[in-house]
Amino acid sequence: MSLDERAAGLDAVDPLAGEPAKFSLPDSTIYLDGNSLGPLPRHVPAVLQNVVEQQWGHDLITSWNRHGWWEAPRRAGDRIGRLLGGAPGQVVAGDSTSQQLFSATVAAARLNPGRRTVVIDPASFPTDLYVVASVAELLGLEVAQVEPSHLQHFLADRGSDVAVAVLCEVDFRTGERLDAPALTDALHQSGALVLWDLCHSAGALVVELDAWGADLAVGCGYKFLNGGPGAPAWIYVAQRHQEQFRGAVAGWNGHARPFAFEAAYEPAPGVSRARVGTPAMLSLLSLDAALDVYDGLDMVDVRARSVSLTGFFLECLAELAPDLEPVTPREPERRGSQVSVRHASAYAVVQALLARGVIGDFREPDIARFGFSPLALTHVQVLRAARELADVVATRAYADPALAARTTVT
Amino acid sequence: MSLDERAAGLDAVDPLAGEPAKFSLPDSTIYLDGNSLGPLPRHVPAVLQNVVEQQWGHDLITSWNRHGWWEAPRRAGDRIGRLLGGAPGQVVAGDSTSQQLFSATVAAARLNPGRRTVVIDPASFPTDLYVVASVAELLGLEVAQVEPSHLQHFLADRGSDVAVAVLCEVDFRTGERLDAPALTDALHQSGALVLWDLCHSAGALVVELDAWGADLAVGCGYKFLNGGPGAPAWIYVAQRHQEQFRGAVAGWNGHARPFAFEAAYEPAPGVSRARVGTPAMLSLLSLDAALDVYDGLDMVDVRARSVSLTGFFLECLAELAPDLEPVTPREPERRGSQVSVRHASAYAVVQALLARGVIGDFREPDIARFGFSPLALTHVQVLRAARELADVVATRAYADPALAARTTVT
Repeated sequence: MSLDERAAGLDAVDPLAGEPAKFSLPDSTIYLDGNSLGPLPRHVPAVLQNVVEQQWGHDLITSWNRHGWWEAPRRAGDRIGRLLGGAPGQVVAGDSTSQQLFSATVAAARLNPGRRTVVIDPASFPTDLYVVASVAELLGLEVAQVEPSHLQHFLADRGSDVAVAVLCEVDFRTGERLDAPALTDALHQSGALVLWDLCHSAGALVVELDAWGADLAVGCGYKFLNGGPGAPAWIYVAQRHQEQFRGAVAGWNGHARPFAFEAAYEPAPGVSRARVGTPAMLSLLSLDAALDVYDGLDMVDVRARSVSLTGFFLECLAELAPDLEPVTPREPERRGSQVSVRHASAYAVVQALLARGVIGDFREPDIARFGFSPLALTHVQVLRAARELADVVATRAYADPALAARTTVT
Repeated sequence: MSLDERAAGLDAVDPLAGEPAKFSLPDSTIYLDGNSLGPLPRHVPAVLQNVVEQQWGHDLITSWNRHGWWEAPRRAGDRIGRLLGGAPGQVVAGDSTSQQLFSATVAAARLNPGRRTVVIDPASFPTDLYVVASVAELLGLEVAQVEPSHLQHFLADRGSDVAVAVLCEVDFRTGERLDAPALTDALHQSGALVLWDLCHSAGALVVELDAWGADLAVGCGYKFLNGGPGAPAWIYVAQRHQEQFRGAVAGWNGHARPFAFEAAYEPAPGVSRARVGTPAMLSLLSLDAALDVYDGLDMVDVRARSVSLTGFFLECLAELAPDLEPVTPREPERRGSQVSVRHASAYAVVQALLARGVIGDFREPDIARFGFSPLALTHVQVLRAARELADVVATRAYADPALAARTTVT
């Protein structure tokens, strides 16, 4: 069977074949950067227009009650929680991922007092490294950079001093996925807590926070959750930790009686105490609306579609560009919703693809990264992207000096 | 001259009489809550529609360069800085006020090492009290609650131990305005730094951060700056402190080379190091667009209009409701852009006004608060609002039990 027949066949039997129609993407574009900025769900512009013109413009301050603005962090949080295997009442949305990670790391250290080590994977997204260092300085803790494959060994030696390990389930460069339940268990056996960074998981993978017994988790709203540029992040605080949870910043939105304007801080019951300041409502309501896409979907099916899309891309590359080296594991259970390939001119390769309407991104030093929004893409598009990539590499289209000279932040 | 003639006359001679037309407000509403949520500038919906449909939906990840998303925190920051007497390169927008205040307080303590006391006005907005307590706990500092009128006395006694004083220029309940230049000088004479909370100043008062010699300042974007619900806050870091500035959280947006994804944090030059995580772009671009309203305006003229509106409201109340007790100072230089009155049934008074289309808000325990967006209101509207307030009080319209029973967060 040809690759064209394979692609058409996979789309034909796809139980979620109707999902791509929910997104507004230019016809000329194949968008493989959903792990940097998720595409626009078609219904979101109308929702936002209503938020701006009717809720802000007409109903003004009364919208905090009338249109549920005040409850939006909890409402969106519960909806995100459902996608992460978290029962209601454990997630709130708001702030940036960096701020949420900071607060969660401080909280974890306070939940596990007396232990002086914070473990982090050196391959983490850099802000995680910076944030953990910020916390360690403020709390007088020590940071231990430990590769996940060495974690068991490290814990055998120093586990009794580990307060928390901060781990990204999916490596942002390679797309490799960790064994989260096993790592969670190992940490708990040492009396350590685990804080999962799920930026590259939420909305694409089957996450089971409650079943894993995770303690804390954070993630962003603008990747596979499609909340829009810089959409608010979120934090998960396991029910059993909520009464003792104390984040870094006590802010009035997390007060038990915020509108009593009391001089002393008293944390709200439950996960609401993880709220801090007033959330950026336009961005938050965009995220809340974007989550409609997931209504009625089971993450097992979403994940199956993601695995099918990334697996087919790897299959296409193996046939069309056998010399290209994927750094993403071929085993479905060991990868996220992304395929990365190594190439000495990866930056120019990504630029050459961009010129052909295939949007991926570059990560230092030599990674061309392709993120697969599990609902927005088709297998036919995936094949076309693989063909373009193979052609760019085979014809050395990337060698055009104009491509290497461009600057980009994408 | 009757009050009607006075109102019409003040509007007729108003050099900024064209400004209210820039805002979209319901005809039936007189909006006196601009210090809680600024009204919608008319041009903002079209800007946001373009941001959502064209920039996010069509141009996708390339918008970070193509549409200046990456520079938006600095661009909006410089525009806010102009309204605050801050030369370019000293303000960045992003995060919530609580987070910015937390970061600024940590930074101030680090800029003034060896001193162990943080001073705060006990009448501050409560989140300021909570945030300062959060910082003090993390850094092992002591909080001293000092009323501004006692500050000189306190400094004479304990000034050599004060690292920073956190002060709100305008009291959120009473509308009283502090003498910021004098307090800044007094603190500097003791070797202390000052961190101004300008939430109720930015966009309404003549602030002169550079001329005052202020060290740090923060404020929100959703009050008189009209940036939309929960619009991002901002931080001002005086040029002379930038090289030593270290906020609470090192985040990748504040890195010298954010897209090199380096494992070690190196702060960006200048005020960009005060950036943390990815900002909520829809909310930030709404704020950036809203600032267009101020293009070409001099804050001296804006302030004159604010003083005229609030002064006329006080004049109307003195004539129409002489028994009502304003708690806002009558001297223009001692008040912000707000008039608060005390009433034993203030909550129900505000609700009764709301039912008549006059939107103010209630602050515990007995304050009815009216915030005057300096550009959006007319003197004729101010008179109508004063008449409704006087009538509600005189007729005891507020005594309707249905009004007192409502719950509201406004």
